[in-house]
Amino acid sequence: MRISILGGTGDIGEGLALRWGRDTDHEIVIGSREADRAVTAATRYAGQLQARGYDPTITGDGNEAAVRGADVVVASVPPYSVADAIEQLGESIPEDAIIVTPAVGIKRDDDGVHYHRPSVGSVTRLAADAASESVSVVGAFHSVPAQRLADLDDPLDMDTIVIGDDTDARTTILGLANEIEGLTALNGGPIANAPEVESLTALLINLGRYNESLHEAGIRVVSPDRPAYDS
Amino acid sequence: MRISILGGTGDIGEGLALRWGRDTDHEIVIGSREADRAVTAATRYAGQLQARGYDPTITGDGNEAAVRGADVVVASVPPYSVADAIEQLGESIPEDAIIVTPAVGIKRDDDGVHYHRPSVGSVTRLAADAASESVSVVGAFHSVPAQRLADLDDPLDMDTIVIGDDTDARTTILGLANEIEGLTALNGGPIANAPEVESLTALLINLGRYNESLHEAGIRVVSPDRPAYDS
Repeated sequence: MRISILGGTGDIGEGLALRWGRDTDHEIVIGSREADRAVTAATRYAGQLQARGYDPTITGDGNEAAVRGADVVVASVPPYSVADAIEQLGESIPEDAIIVTPAVGIKRDDDGVHYHRPSVGSVTRLAADAASESVSVVGAFHSVPAQRLADLDDPLDMDTIVIGDDTDARTTILGLANEIEGLTALNGGPIANAPEVESLTALLINLGRYNESLHEAGIRVVSPDRPAYDS
Repeated sequence: MRISILGGTGDIGEGLALRWGRDTDHEIVIGSREADRAVTAATRYAGQLQARGYDPTITGDGNEAAVRGADVVVASVPPYSVADAIEQLGESIPEDAIIVTPAVGIKRDDDGVHYHRPSVGSVTRLAADAASESVSVVGAFHSVPAQRLADLDDPLDMDTIVIGDDTDARTTILGLANEIEGLTALNGGPIANAPEVESLTALLINLGRYNESLHEAGIRVVSPDRPAYDS
């Protein structure tokens, strides 16, 4: 699979490139507005993995070139740039590609951070509205701390919830997320269910502030069939 | 401590009565609009615990009598009755009591259930606005499945997030929640942070629908200092 990571020079894009580079055979293309920056980042990620004995395929290019031929495009850009980025790349993104958005809107006040819900319902919906009809949009990775994802020594041991209206596309991204060691992908259903998923980021930031041992926290969903602890 | 559980004849109130009855020495008073129903429920809970070898103090009474002398009043009533229930009992609730609300607003459509956020910001805020100024309102237990709480054989092994504007009151309820075996109480900060906490209920219901092994799920917040698995 060819995975383009837009905004792959920082934040969650870096962690996804490193993890997929290590845990899978997928071809990773880092995209950036400036091709040079993307190439530099790709070289750095590949070098980091080679030093650990892996042989990943990670290249870099300008955004438009990076999405060409992509099966999956991860739009790792700030929440209110997601729609613009998708619209601008509209014609370059292949017709049957899947766009993945990890973006959430957040506002901050004295008490904590709060989910800033766009009027269309969610950031995932914003992204879906901006994409052409043939392209599926899926939300994922919202509650995975970027710093921990980029630290290959971190075992993660957490969940990510995947939402999308197209069942096949959602299943593909569930699979792709599950390929990352230590990450378990859960099916969140259609994009109508996105607000509660996107809200998790603010919740986790607040828990990090008010509880000493919960910095850079993620979530794990537990049930009688799936306990928190192996016992 | 004297804990009154309004609406303690069903839903999460039953589980709280049983768990505190088993795991603590607190005095539990079940409240109901009809005193008879409260007494019947209290007798049943006490009997269930006695059959397991415990000796709890659980009695039942009409709502007004039940809250008298209470240190903590749990308003286990439907979300849009919370404010009314608190207003009606205003004069009976002791001045320095803490009101605990586990209520969340939910609406349902074809795709799933969704957090129905009240215009004041959260159900916890609704409850706080309805209470007299001397009384502290704290939100807790939103993401704990009622059925599992009421099943004393269920190990729970999950978290609950506690929110409240008064630090002392929040600390008291954090302690009270932590006294329930298998439940870990996390500090969610002030009521401004309630929407993201109340949203969890809808999220968990949706995950139960779209994932086979996640019925009656709860959450566990994991971080490097607090991994999902003991290792």
